[in-house]
Amino acid sequence: MALANRSLVIVDDLSNGEIEALFSLADEMSGSMDEQFGVCHGKIMASLFFEPSTRTRLSFETAMHRLGGSVISAVDVRATSLAKGESIADMARVVGSYADIIVIRHPWEGAAKVVADYAGVPVINAGDGSHEHPTQTLCDLYTIRKERQTIKGLKIALWGDLKYGRAIHSLTYGLARFGATILFRPGPGLELPEHVIRKLTTEYGGELKRYEAQDQPVKREPFPLDAIYITPSSPHQLAMMPDVSIQVELKTGVDALYVTRLQMERLSARAKRQGLKESYPVVDKKLLKEKEFKRTLVMHPLPRIDELAYEVDADPRSMYFKQAARGVPVRMALVAFLLGTKEISVSREGDSFIPKIDYPVYRRDFGIRCPNPRCVSTQETETKYIKPEFKIVSSQPLTLRCVYCEHEVYPQYIASSEWHDGTLENKKYHSAASHWTRRIKPENLIIFDSQSEAEVHGFKPSHYARVGH
Amino acid sequence: MALANRSLVIVDDLSNGEIEALFSLADEMSGSMDEQFGVCHGKIMASLFFEPSTRTRLSFETAMHRLGGSVISAVDVRATSLAKGESIADMARVVGSYADIIVIRHPWEGAAKVVADYAGVPVINAGDGSHEHPTQTLCDLYTIRKERQTIKGLKIALWGDLKYGRAIHSLTYGLARFGATILFRPGPGLELPEHVIRKLTTEYGGELKRYEAQDQPVKREPFPLDAIYITPSSPHQLAMMPDVSIQVELKTGVDALYVTRLQMERLSARAKRQGLKESYPVVDKKLLKEKEFKRTLVMHPLPRIDELAYEVDADPRSMYFKQAARGVPVRMALVAFLLGTKEISVSREGDSFIPKIDYPVYRRDFGIRCPNPRCVSTQETETKYIKPEFKIVSSQPLTLRCVYCEHEVYPQYIASSEWHDGTLENKKYHSAASHWTRRIKPENLIIFDSQSEAEVHGFKPSHYARVGH
Amino acid sequence: MALANRSLVIVDDLSNGEIEALFSLADEMSGSMDEQFGVCHGKIMASLFFEPSTRTRLSFETAMHRLGGSVISAVDVRATSLAKGESIADMARVVGSYADIIVIRHPWEGAAKVVADYAGVPVINAGDGSHEHPTQTLCDLYTIRKERQTIKGLKIALWGDLKYGRAIHSLTYGLARFGATILFRPGPGLELPEHVIRKLTTEYGGELKRYEAQDQPVKREPFPLDAIYITPSSPHQLAMMPDVSIQVELKTGVDALYVTRLQMERLSARAKRQGLKESYPVVDKKLLKEKEFKRTLVMHPLPRIDELAYEVDADPRSMYFKQAARGVPVRMALVAFLLGTKEISVSREGDSFIPKIDYPVYRRDFGIRCPNPRCVSTQETETKYIKPEFKIVSSQPLTLRCVYCEHEVYPQYIASSEWHDGTLENKKYHSAASHWTRRIKPENLIIFDSQSEAEVHGFKPSHYARVGH
Repeated sequence: MALANRSLVIVDDLSNGEIEALFSLADEMSGSMDEQFGVCHGKIMASLFFEPSTRTRLSFETAMHRLGGSVISAVDVRATSLAKGESIADMARVVGSYADIIVIRHPWEGAAKVVADYAGVPVINAGDGSHEHPTQTLCDLYTIRKERQTIKGLKIALWGDLKYGRAIHSLTYGLARFGATILFRPGPGLELPEHVIRKLTTEYGGELKRYEAQDQPVKREPFPLDAIYITPSSPHQLAMMPDVSIQVELKTGVDALYVTRLQMERLSARAKRQGLKESYPVVDKKLLKEKEFKRTLVMHPLPRIDELAYEVDADPRSMYFKQAARGVPVRMALVAFLLGTKEISVSREGDSFIPKIDYPVYRRDFGIRCPNPRCVSTQETETKYIKPEFKIVSSQPLTLRCVYCEHEVYPQYIASSEWHDGTLENKKYHSAASHWTRRIKPENLIIFDSQSEAEVHGFKPSHYARVGH
Repeated sequence: MALANRSLVIVDDLSNGEIEALFSLADEMSGSMDEQFGVCHGKIMASLFFEPSTRTRLSFETAMHRLGGSVISAVDVRATSLAKGESIADMARVVGSYADIIVIRHPWEGAAKVVADYAGVPVINAGDGSHEHPTQTLCDLYTIRKERQTIKGLKIALWGDLKYGRAIHSLTYGLARFGATILFRPGPGLELPEHVIRKLTTEYGGELKRYEAQDQPVKREPFPLDAIYITPSSPHQLAMMPDVSIQVELKTGVDALYVTRLQMERLSARAKRQGLKESYPVVDKKLLKEKEFKRTLVMHPLPRIDELAYEVDADPRSMYFKQAARGVPVRMALVAFLLGTKEISVSREGDSFIPKIDYPVYRRDFGIRCPNPRCVSTQETETKYIKPEFKIVSSQPLTLRCVYCEHEVYPQYIASSEWHDGTLENKKYHSAASHWTRRIKPENLIIFDSQSEAEVHGFKPSHYARVGH
Repeated sequence: MALANRSLVIVDDLSNGEIEALFSLADEMSGSMDEQFGVCHGKIMASLFFEPSTRTRLSFETAMHRLGGSVISAVDVRATSLAKGESIADMARVVGSYADIIVIRHPWEGAAKVVADYAGVPVINAGDGSHEHPTQTLCDLYTIRKERQTIKGLKIALWGDLKYGRAIHSLTYGLARFGATILFRPGPGLELPEHVIRKLTTEYGGELKRYEAQDQPVKREPFPLDAIYITPSSPHQLAMMPDVSIQVELKTGVDALYVTRLQMERLSARAKRQGLKESYPVVDKKLLKEKEFKRTLVMHPLPRIDELAYEVDADPRSMYFKQAARGVPVRMALVAFLLGTKEISVSREGDSFIPKIDYPVYRRDFGIRCPNPRCVSTQETETKYIKPEFKIVSSQPLTLRCVYCEHEVYPQYIASSEWHDGTLENKKYHSAASHWTRRIKPENLIIFDSQSEAEVHGFKPSHYARVGH
């Protein structure tokens, strides 16, 4: 198994074994920093940050310099040719012909995948909108593992903005894959998105138990839980009687409390008016006195605003500055692996990652498009060359996952593209809720956003064209 | 002949022989990239980009890093001391005392010349307004030569924005000097500027044939020509009977089609309103099916917007990503030559560049100024130290070329500064159209923008002061 | 004595002997530039510029590259996590865990001290608002010393914006410490701030003679003096009869004329309207013909605007481009010392710096705050963790100096925090002008901005609560 020339766009691009090998290398590197200078001698990293960043960008650039490599960077979308209307693909192809590796942060979800598709060199996603931020997760998992030796079986609470926080999304997947139990405590209206929950429950095999509609079982101070993800490696009783068990479990303490800031820059004006900021949960000395948090690691991807009080900075449980500092050796290890200047060795049997489900793919020029306005595939400059593409993650109800931003779509109409003697056998369209959704082979499926669109393409309604039929 | 310590402000700063030597070094370097690391060990490049850029800036910085040198950069005019009202000359002097070589992009035409005049170190023009972009031309010529072995005798079509495109201006000169035939196909209202045409016809010795006013001889689809530049090395019959010959010639195919984007950032609001964008020529699969383009290299300096369809990206004739990638070895060779870390060897007999015409120079504190509002010599911060300076490129009609932006001026009034016994012999001013323009020696010439200006300086109208007299 | 791991926030962070050792190393380094490459091999400088800069930033980055080190940089506050509301302390801690040394420029006064307090690595202040710019002063002193062999006993005129010019403030301290006589010639309304004058007279032991209210003794052309700082090492007669003596002294010539630009970016709209720019003093050829300036070094920290005419650039007395160029070896020496890659040797007896006065410190969560709106301690993002802190520099009238921005406060009310049997002995507050100010021990002092604030904290007015009592 080799990491050289691969990209890291989402956490799932690395197997558990690869992540563990990466952590070993990070350990080794942080213990002998001076000896690493020269590992990437003569190599060039392009550091492209089209959203504000200090920490992540400087951490990657530091990693490259510590390895003895060079950095070229673009830090402001207004100062680049994207301001002239250039597409991400063109930029990726050109920069890929200059640099040996590309680190990209971009406000559009799925942008990093496009860069990886076109650059021809390894690409690292340093955050794409609210989608993923996999290297933050590597730093987070590395910190937990360093402090607690393992991740398996730990109880990790995620706290704050679970909706827009890309670091939270990636971390959720990472924790699930390594067998942690995850406690969700969102700010008001900032619950985990549907598509993240689906991935959790269908791909990592655990169970999600929600509390919102229930009679506040564990909805108590100081920890008003919204939901809990129970890993498949959990003891049976917890999986079967979660309400009772979690109360028992919580008494033994939370292993880590992962706090995030409110992503003001992604909030609507309405949410801002509603004073979301005021009701956002805050971690301070008082909270940390609760017995559940006695031995809890307090983590934060930084920057913080008001959700994490300065008074806990000196507390030995506070991990956030260590998390940040560990970003350097973790990114050094990652860069060295992707550039192939360090060999990775992963024993197959040691690799416990749950294999990905092989969903059928839907990809057509016309018809359904991703409805996420921040998805790269829907941007004016990118539609010139990006064909909408989805994984069919469920057929009842018909559910598509955009391959770029991973948001879900629930289309209303379908048809078949099966040909017979040079013409479409049947130019009828049906409701996606009808039995036709299962009868048409995935490779023949045509999916429409609306009846009018189906009709523009020459399809007529079948008996099964009414929604819900 | 040595390139060390010289600057590259316009294409004509390099002889043909030097350009060929540079291409040989670029070939050598791209064949042994790893060995180049260290060639510029300990050297520092200042990369100053006061206009948006990804490609050019990252390409220069990559080149320097591949040579083992270091880079300091300033990428945003708002973040520099120019924002405090500093002049370009002061900035050049200071940065020139830090770095070993300066790469400058600036929106003002002639800015790179000012930097070269004051920096005290080699300066490379990476684009100054709509004036020149000589290193883009080096990449373009290098690509043509690599694909076709020679430039001499090729038929190259320039397509799109010929008015504001600095890459086009520099390329036009380069192609003319290397003996290509150039076919011009501008967007509406985007014809080659007068001063570029003059340079073509007076300095590179060829002939320009225009078609606009004619009975549309070769104004046919798919190639509605506006003008054609016929190189002096052309066979006689083409030069003598261009209309007929070009039709014959075109049938044998165009060697390269050089497409450019519409420079929206340099267009007036009026041009934008007139929907220039809609009538701009587009290169797509359909066009490339025409027999003239069967073996045509499709080139573009990038970034593209809509003028070059993504559907031709995979076509083997498409050269634009190769052009971009070749920017690195070409710029490596250039930087190494200018820093003197690689010796250049040019045989004099091999150097076919047509020698420059030695025009008389006009330079005075008062009187005529360059009328180009984007010329560096007319900017408030620069007039404190820049004295207007022109080459007298023609005396009938009197025509001056600004030494900074190379735009032309056609002044109306003149006088003589000849002194006799301590006073001006004759304090009269004349129309520039009168015979006095030829009678006054260039070193005594005083040129005025207007009658009132002449009179402010104590001159009175002569009998020959009326325009057209 | 060692410089390694120390920070340079204000000029007084270095002793005179250390400054002289630094100048010797700068001399040595500028004489053998090529040999310095590698001195900081593998080290990383973070270059954080949250205000426009070309010169200082590029000079530091050049210095690091010439030493063979690497640079990570952030040049625009909008492109960093500060834009997300992060505090300076958090940023400092994180960047300090990446880089080996930090160079910071920031618009808030005292920001560099905060960075130094939290970073855990050496920090260099590259300008914090109108406070200090100590490395500019090092370049200035180095230039004077190189041209005149000594600073002691020289007559240096400071010219222009003495109010907002941070370079002027630092230079004033530096010159005073090295025994120069300083002549102040401010622009209208741009006199030296009170807190700078106090430091001059109380800490460097000299005497300040002001001319403004007098019958214009030396208020004559070309040198309308505002004030003169007479160094304690001056001959007695000058100190005793300054008016007469300075006229005699001036005839022997000014050694250096240090000109500064008007800091437009720090001016109020009102000052701009009042046409401050028009009445600002200008140095030109005519002025330099005066006999006082016959052998005067003309200095300027650059960038200049209109206060220094281009016509004197070629004059051998003009030092400003040399000043800028010398910034590189001076900063190389400083960086190498702070990183400990060069050892410093300072003989104690050779160190003539006047020892600092050990003022009592006042530090409380509540009560008096720094009134300077540009002080870092009063910014919304920073008050979360910065406790107001002052030096008590005088008790009559009670005068506090903010430890961050060094501005002065003259508080109106005081109380005592002396405890007796678990309660405050006396919950009365008094006028700061009363005898209580001297009676309460500094460690017990509580200082209030206003009566209402005192009363909020449960204090009642004493008989001595009226101001001026």
